[in-house]
Amino acid sequence: MFRHSQEKNPQVVDPRWKCVCAYDGTAFAGWQSQVKGNAIQDVIEAQLARILGRPVRTHASGRTDAGVHARGQVFHFDAAWRHGGAKLVAALSSGLPPTIQIKSAREVARDFHSRFSALGKIYSYHLYLGDPDPFSRPFCWGRLHDLDLRAMKEAAALLRGKRDFRAFSAFNGAEQEDTVRNLRRLDVTTCGRRIKITAEADGFLYKMVRRLVGAIVAAGQGKLSPERIKTLLASGERTSDLHTAPPQGLYLNKVLY
Amino acid sequence: MFRHSQEKNPQVVDPRWKCVCAYDGTAFAGWQSQVKGNAIQDVIEAQLARILGRPVRTHASGRTDAGVHARGQVFHFDAAWRHGGAKLVAALSSGLPPTIQIKSAREVARDFHSRFSALGKIYSYHLYLGDPDPFSRPFCWGRLHDLDLRAMKEAAALLRGKRDFRAFSAFNGAEQEDTVRNLRRLDVTTCGRRIKITAEADGFLYKMVRRLVGAIVAAGQGKLSPERIKTLLASGERTSDLHTAPPQGLYLNKVLY
Repeated sequence: MFRHSQEKNPQVVDPRWKCVCAYDGTAFAGWQSQVKGNAIQDVIEAQLARILGRPVRTHASGRTDAGVHARGQVFHFDAAWRHGGAKLVAALSSGLPPTIQIKSAREVARDFHSRFSALGKIYSYHLYLGDPDPFSRPFCWGRLHDLDLRAMKEAAALLRGKRDFRAFSAFNGAEQEDTVRNLRRLDVTTCGRRIKITAEADGFLYKMVRRLVGAIVAAGQGKLSPERIKTLLASGERTSDLHTAPPQGLYLNKVLY
Repeated sequence: MFRHSQEKNPQVVDPRWKCVCAYDGTAFAGWQSQVKGNAIQDVIEAQLARILGRPVRTHASGRTDAGVHARGQVFHFDAAWRHGGAKLVAALSSGLPPTIQIKSAREVARDFHSRFSALGKIYSYHLYLGDPDPFSRPFCWGRLHDLDLRAMKEAAALLRGKRDFRAFSAFNGAEQEDTVRNLRRLDVTTCGRRIKITAEADGFLYKMVRRLVGAIVAAGQGKLSPERIKTLLASGERTSDLHTAPPQGLYLNKVLY
C-alpha cells in the first residue's frame, strides 16, 4: 500500500510545489476529481502518483466546469521531489495527454495555497458571429448574429466595479455566501467576427463569468435593458431569464498572487 | 439498390455543385476515401448520400494527407439538388461532425472541375518555438528551438520561383511526372513564438509543402546550406537527409480558380 511520506517521519515536512497548467477542457469533466476519473485533476494526480510512488492530493485555485479551458490554472501539492522544477515539469508532462500542459513548477513557501493565497483571477470568454470554423468551434460561443456592440459595452460598464453579484452567479450550495466581488475589469473587444470579453476580479462566484457573459450577450440582442441590469444588481434575484453562456468559450487565463 | 440519376434518363444532366470546406484533419485519414471510411471524403459522401438518396462521388482540388487541415478545400459533385446553395450548406452541415465545416456551396458550369480548373493553391505551415499549449499543439510543428530566421528567409528566397522541385517532393508513383512548378510565394513571417510559412504556386507536387518546410527549418538549424539547396534544385535528387515536416502544421488555405 502507498503511504504518505509524512507518515514515515512526522518531523520531515515535504516541500510545497506550485504548478501552472493549461488545458483544452473539451474532453474532460472539469477540473475537480470525479468518480469516473475523467477530470483534469484525476489525470494529473494519476501521473503524480506514478512519478512519486504514492498518492498525492492537488489543490487548485478553483474548479473549472466541464468543457471550460485554462491557459493558467494553478495547483499545488506537497511532495519530496528532489530534482527541481524543470525536471518535475518534464516528469509530469511525460505521462499527460496532449490536451493538458504543465507550463511551470516551482517550490514555494509552505504557507502558499493555490486557492487561499490568490488575490484575483483573469478569465476570457470568446464569442463568434456566424458559423465558427472547426478550429474555433470548440473554443467559442458561436452562431451569434446581429449583436449590438454598443449595448454590450454599456452592459459591461454597468456590471464593472465592487458589487453584489448574487444575481449573476449560480447557487453553489452555501446559502450564507458573501456574494460581493470587486470586478476590476470587464472589457468587450472585437477582432473581425470575434468578440472577446475579459473579466478580472478579486474572486468569482460559481458560474459568474458565464452568467455575466450571458447578460452581456442578452444586452447585445436587445433582450436585457440597462434598467433590468441595475434592478438585478440591486435585488440579487437569480432569475431564470438570465442565460448562462456555454462552457466551451471560457478560459481561465491567470491566477494573481 | 441506389442508381445514379443519370442512368434513369441519359438526356437529363445534373447540375454541378462547387463546395468550399474547412476541416480539422487531426482525427481523419486525410481527404481521400479509405476502405475504413475514416477519410474526410467518406464522411462528406455519406452525408451527401443521406440527403440525395443515392451515392454521390465528390472530386476535390487534391488530396490532403492524414493529419493535414484545410481552411478552404474545394470539391465538386453533380446532383439534382433544387433548393439552392444555402440550403445545401445547411443540409450537408446537419450530418457532419464539428471538425468538418461546409463554408459555401454554389452551382457552377458543367466544365468546372475542382482539380483541373485550379490555377493555383495557397498553403500555410505553422511552427512553434518551445512547447506549444494544448490549443496550438494539434496545429503546429512544435518543440523547435534556436532557429536562425535570417537563414530560413534566405532558404525561402532560393526556393521561390519557377523551378524543378523534384528534390523537394516525394515519389507519387508516376515516374514521368513533370516536376516543374511556379512557386510564386514562399514567405516566412513571425509573431512571438510562432513562425508561419506561406506557400503559393500554380500547383504542388506530392508532399512538396512539407518538404519545403523541412528544408527551411533545416536551414534555420544550420543543417542545410544555401549551396546544398542550389545543388538539390539542380540535381533533383530525392535525398533522405531532407526532412518532411509533420502533417499537423499544414493548412490548405485556398484554391485559386
